[in-house]
Amino acid sequence: MQFQISEELIENIQNLIREGRDEELLLYLEEVHHADIAEIINELELDEATHIIKILDTEKTSEALMELEEDVRERILNNLSAREIAEELENMDTDDAADIIAELSEERKQEVIDEMVDEEHAEHIVELLRYDEDSAGGLMAKELVKVNENWSVTGCMSEMRAQAEEVTRVHSIYVVDDKGRLKGRLSLKDLLTAPSDANISDVYIPKVDYVNVHTEGEEVARVMQKYDLEAIPVVDEMGRLVGRITIDDIVDLIREVAEKDYQMAAGISEDVEADDSILNHSRARLPWLILALFGGLISVNLLGTFDDALQEHAVLFFFVPLMAAMAGNVGVQSSAIILQGLANKSLRGSLFNRLIKEILLSLLNGLVLAILLVVGGVFFLGMDFLFGITIAISLISVIINASLIGTFVPIILDRLGINPALATGPFITTSNDIFGILIYFTIAKMILGF
Amino acid sequence: MQFQISEELIENIQNLIREGRDEELLLYLEEVHHADIAEIINELELDEATHIIKILDTEKTSEALMELEEDVRERILNNLSAREIAEELENMDTDDAADIIAELSEERKQEVIDEMVDEEHAEHIVELLRYDEDSAGGLMAKELVKVNENWSVTGCMSEMRAQAEEVTRVHSIYVVDDKGRLKGRLSLKDLLTAPSDANISDVYIPKVDYVNVHTEGEEVARVMQKYDLEAIPVVDEMGRLVGRITIDDIVDLIREVAEKDYQMAAGISEDVEADDSILNHSRARLPWLILALFGGLISVNLLGTFDDALQEHAVLFFFVPLMAAMAGNVGVQSSAIILQGLANKSLRGSLFNRLIKEILLSLLNGLVLAILLVVGGVFFLGMDFLFGITIAISLISVIINASLIGTFVPIILDRLGINPALATGPFITTSNDIFGILIYFTIAKMILGF
Repeated sequence: MQFQISEELIENIQNLIREGRDEELLLYLEEVHHADIAEIINELELDEATHIIKILDTEKTSEALMELEEDVRERILNNLSAREIAEELENMDTDDAADIIAELSEERKQEVIDEMVDEEHAEHIVELLRYDEDSAGGLMAKELVKVNENWSVTGCMSEMRAQAEEVTRVHSIYVVDDKGRLKGRLSLKDLLTAPSDANISDVYIPKVDYVNVHTEGEEVARVMQKYDLEAIPVVDEMGRLVGRITIDDIVDLIREVAEKDYQMAAGISEDVEADDSILNHSRARLPWLILALFGGLISVNLLGTFDDALQEHAVLFFFVPLMAAMAGNVGVQSSAIILQGLANKSLRGSLFNRLIKEILLSLLNGLVLAILLVVGGVFFLGMDFLFGITIAISLISVIINASLIGTFVPIILDRLGINPALATGPFITTSNDIFGILIYFTIAKMILGF
Repeated sequence: MQFQISEELIENIQNLIREGRDEELLLYLEEVHHADIAEIINELELDEATHIIKILDTEKTSEALMELEEDVRERILNNLSAREIAEELENMDTDDAADIIAELSEERKQEVIDEMVDEEHAEHIVELLRYDEDSAGGLMAKELVKVNENWSVTGCMSEMRAQAEEVTRVHSIYVVDDKGRLKGRLSLKDLLTAPSDANISDVYIPKVDYVNVHTEGEEVARVMQKYDLEAIPVVDEMGRLVGRITIDDIVDLIREVAEKDYQMAAGISEDVEADDSILNHSRARLPWLILALFGGLISVNLLGTFDDALQEHAVLFFFVPLMAAMAGNVGVQSSAIILQGLANKSLRGSLFNRLIKEILLSLLNGLVLAILLVVGGVFFLGMDFLFGITIAISLISVIINASLIGTFVPIILDRLGINPALATGPFITTSNDIFGILIYFTIAKMILGF
């Protein structure tokens, strides 16, 4: 059943376009899912892509447009007239249409809205554009099925059929009062099994999870995941039902948030993809590299202050990358665990307990590593015993310090309301390098006395 | 609407349990969603948790049991008799029941299955246990609504109502032939709007996405995300419809995979959470730390071979952590981008183009950083000019090398069929340290000649 894109497939399609064999092309594309058409379009030249968008029937094109990569879509939309874009938008759900129109320039936006024939649809889109794109209002669609609590089951069936025609997938039927305020829900299953002479008010479920238009997208995702919801209604400040969010948009959001957090943790400050331009990549990566560079310069100076050790204990300097690597790895491990706990809201227990636990864990890991290092060094490589002890104590101290930094920096940032994913990667690695070197040479100076 | 767990709430519940005020407790818990009950139980002592599980009605307990953390659930199940567990399982969907029973010992498993009264349910669970837990067969539930293509619309409505009673949420109605082979689907919307004298074969949609029982879970997730599916049918080797997978299970899977990959990239080799035991954490983290330790020892030896430089150019050694940090950060940045591209299957273009792009990007970033470093060093800190040039050329070379390692190690691992997330974190950082030092001192030796 799997569709597989291949160079051969793309070449065939390009040939059909070049030779003007539109009928054959349409015959083939009719069988292809719109998400797959989007994959094909992503691979084509701009004029070929525009050709396909123009010859395909609007329903399929509008769905394919939604699935395209943003930069490809932007170029295709620039190639279409305001009238043509308006036609595509009229075939989309309001949430998708609003997302696309938000990508246009202010002037183009107005032109496209003016060209729309279905005024209610246009109004809905304009309403959605008012909300922040990361809020429930920005995620919701206006399409939903709702019934009045005062209607009868049979009476609302025909009304519902009409509404259902407009809605791609019916998840729940929402129940509202005369003022449009959300009162509860009715599942299709309940409706299928309800006695036909019942009233809506007799059969609806008065408990319903909902979010406010201003609820943040990530909070919507958390609620829908926790309660296994496939759709959630959205109410305005007056409690009136104004839209609904479906799980497919949330799946995309969850993936985007995970990707953004992962990139941030890896020291990439903007949302870039492998295929973005070199300048975009440079802009996203350079800030963190500059931070690391300044951190590195601090280590240079710090090492310079310990240059007394160069005469007798030059070997100490050979161990610097080892100490820095251990500190870096331990810091990233600790912070990864804490970041996930924070993201899942699964961190329990007091800060003090966490402190004790991290210290014990680092002691355990540090001891194992120190023993490996010293036994190997002293017994097999003939390392000086006192030097071995110095390295061992330093290693354990550096590991404990790194794990504490890795654990508490994200927790503190989170409490300050800053995205804790910022804390991993370059930031923790850089500070662990500096503190690691400081701890290592201070201990060495105390034991070896230079 | 939001439920918020608090210490006060937990204390109140503990008091009610201690004072034997079960009726008040039930009255309160009746209003609480099962996912919230699971959160409460996670906070309680084992005997308190078991008490709640025993007094609550089975439907709610079984749902709460599913949401518990695995270790908490394990302890509670150990406190219940085989009969009591069997009762809980009979209230669960087959996929959840199979997941829980899979956590029991072989002997206990048999006892529980023997205690089950609903034989069909028990058989279904036993069937699901046969599949690998990461395959579509391991993810699917047996509960679904299916109709025969030869039935009439009216004729199948009553049959469907009966089936719908068993299924928590009806997504699609699947259409099968007389041999049980999947032929297509029917949406509830189509059924609502179909003329009542039609036949199923007249109204069903013959195109339906499906997966095979052996399809990997991650592939199921990719298909469901790409095509925005809320449920997907699963067929066996003969094309017979044997189950369906719903999006809520896939949402959990997507989160788990993202977490696992992120942990792997951070150098944590088992699936651990913040609240797991110290020994579990140590076992998950130590292997990578030992790898980093050996990498560090290689750097120690490598630096030892350049000890000629100690006399005249000791400052070179002070720059080692800076070079290592830049290499580490660049490597993690490059690999993060590639890992995401691999995970999304969005990497396009040839390996050669990617090579050129990474080199250009590294040249650009490296130049900016080298200029910052040299201008600052030579003009403000009075660094020797030749030394400045050495550092600059080394920095750019180290950055190019690190980005190539970060880019191509994941791609190569992926082509070899190894999870590329393994490649980030400790592995790339360690090799970048070693190659970085080698490149740095080789260039320094060529320019400064020691």
